[in-house]
Amino acid sequence: MGENQETQKSFLETVKFDSKGLVPAIVQDHETGKVLMMAWMNLESLKMTIEKKKACYWSRSRNKLWLKGESSGNMQEVHDILIDCDGDTLLLKVSQKGGACHVGYHSCFYRKTVDGESMEICDTLMFDPEEVYGKQS
Amino acid sequence: MGENQETQKSFLETVKFDSKGLVPAIVQDHETGKVLMMAWMNLESLKMTIEKKKACYWSRSRNKLWLKGESSGNMQEVHDILIDCDGDTLLLKVSQKGGACHVGYHSCFYRKTVDGESMEICDTLMFDPEEVYGKQS
Repeated sequence: MGENQETQKSFLETVKFDSKGLVPAIVQDHETGKVLMMAWMNLESLKMTIEKKKACYWSRSRNKLWLKGESSGNMQEVHDILIDCDGDTLLLKVSQKGGACHVGYHSCFYRKTVDGESMEICDTLMFDPEEVYGKQS
Repeated sequence: MGENQETQKSFLETVKFDSKGLVPAIVQDHETGKVLMMAWMNLESLKMTIEKKKACYWSRSRNKLWLKGESSGNMQEVHDILIDCDGDTLLLKVSQKGGACHVGYHSCFYRKTVDGESMEICDTLMFDPEEVYGKQS
C-alpha cells in the first residue's frame, strides 16, 4: 500500500472493532514514553475521547462508559491517537494526572519478571486507593 | 494488597488468559520506550518467549505459534516482561531487529490522528515488504 491508500480513509473508518464492538487502547505518557495501562474503547467512548481530548473508555467490568479519572481525579489529557497496521489496536499519547492504576501505582504495569517465575515491583506508588476510592468491602 | 501479596504468586499463575486462552502483549523498545506493536500470546507462546528470550506469539489469523521474525528476520530479544494490575495484559520490553511491522515500518503504529478524522504517517519505513515476504497475490 502506498502512503495515500494508508491515510486516505478517515481515522474512524480505519478502526476495526472486535465482535463485541471494542478495540484495545494502549496508553503511553507522551513525554517519557512510559506505558501506563491498556483499556478498551467502543465507538462512543472513542468519539468522546476525540471530542473532549480526555481519555474515555468502555468498562467491561461495569459495562458502562468510563471517563478516566471521574472517581480518582486522575484524568488523561490526550495529545495523539495512533492506530496500528491492522486497524485493530489504538495507542493514546497522554498527560497522566497522578497515577493511572487503581491500585495506586503510576502505571498498571508495576510488576515485572525476568525469569518467568518470580515477580518484583518496578514502579512508584502514587496514592492510597482507600483514600481515593474509599474502603472496598 | 501489600507488596507481598502482589508478588507472592508466580508470574505464570498471575497471567489471566481470556476465554480463547489468549492475553494481549504490548511490545515496547526497551531503550527508547517506543511502542512497536501489540500481539496475542497463549500459554505455550508465553512459555516459549520466557525460555528463548525471543518474542513468540499466537497468530490469530494463521492459528499457529509465531516466532516473531521467523520469516522477516526481524526478531525481538526480550529483556523484561511486565504484567498489569488485573493480570490480563503483558508488556514486553525488547530489542527490535529491523522493523516490527509487516508493512515495513519500524512500528505498527505508523499513523496518527490529531483531529479524529484525517491521519498522517508518523514513522519511518525500514524495509520493502515485497523484498522480505515476497510479492503478495
